[in-house]
Amino acid sequence: MTKARDLTEHRIDSEAVFDGKLLHVRRDNVRLPDGSHATREYIVHPGAVLIIPLLDAQTVILERQFRYPGQRNFIELPAGKKEPGEDALLTAQRELEEETGYRAATWQKLATTHPSVGYSNEHIDYFVARELTYVGARLDEGEFLEVLAVKIDEALAWIKQGTITDIKTIAGLFWLTHL
Amino acid sequence: MTKARDLTEHRIDSEAVFDGKLLHVRRDNVRLPDGSHATREYIVHPGAVLIIPLLDAQTVILERQFRYPGQRNFIELPAGKKEPGEDALLTAQRELEEETGYRAATWQKLATTHPSVGYSNEHIDYFVARELTYVGARLDEGEFLEVLAVKIDEALAWIKQGTITDIKTIAGLFWLTHL
Repeated sequence: MTKARDLTEHRIDSEAVFDGKLLHVRRDNVRLPDGSHATREYIVHPGAVLIIPLLDAQTVILERQFRYPGQRNFIELPAGKKEPGEDALLTAQRELEEETGYRAATWQKLATTHPSVGYSNEHIDYFVARELTYVGARLDEGEFLEVLAVKIDEALAWIKQGTITDIKTIAGLFWLTHL
Repeated sequence: MTKARDLTEHRIDSEAVFDGKLLHVRRDNVRLPDGSHATREYIVHPGAVLIIPLLDAQTVILERQFRYPGQRNFIELPAGKKEPGEDALLTAQRELEEETGYRAATWQKLATTHPSVGYSNEHIDYFVARELTYVGARLDEGEFLEVLAVKIDEALAWIKQGTITDIKTIAGLFWLTHL
């Protein structure tokens, strides 16, 4: 194990191979550390935010939402995609209010994280939102979800029972116990 | 908030829109809960495993690996994609040995999780691997990575410092503190 070893893969060329409404896929030819060549396919993503909204010190706001790729409902912390170039905090404030109806007076940035390092350049900025006021939700057209206020201890039990399986949510809820 | 509300999106039709070497994208037309129509694009994925290998009660095995989509090295728990139809435990045993050189005598399944519910049907089965014996790594051709033995407390500090940003790894390391 050599700490200083260079593992970088160098781009030879790059091509857009799928441009959908939601997904944008590129395929690059790359040179590996040993000089051989390989292909890399990946999603180009504008980035997203995740919000951990605390109603009080023991209670977190979660959402129940049907997710088509998995063909079932998932329980998740509120999250949303950034508009191109949008400041992450503004995205977080907008998404929290639109989806849950809450506005937060205090925002704490935890980290920038990566959900799918193998096939996407997506990053997710994590925020804790405190001092919530209910102002009313304004869901996007075609968006359907339920808002749940759940005790943190219960949410942690839901992870262990397999009721919560969304990894970004699992990381966020466990993070609460390490603040 | 109505608990029994049906949030299901029903498939109208489905089409393969990109078939790459690594990525397979489908586009479906769906009927939303209010009867309106929408498009869903998503990656079809065979599923994966993540292994939390404990060298002893305080030490975890991590990997440092260049990830092309993010254009830098990431520190991650060992993980790998299932062969079609492969039992997750067999994938986990194979990947742990190939990537890190360790074989484990004890395996504990933690959960089945989902890394990208918005645009992929990927699931990741989490395992804790204990009683490790070093037998030698056998990396796949074109695979380059470094293996690190790290104190769990140090790995948790790396999360808070932003040195570890891979969400599946963050969830796995925090989970160790909730076993």
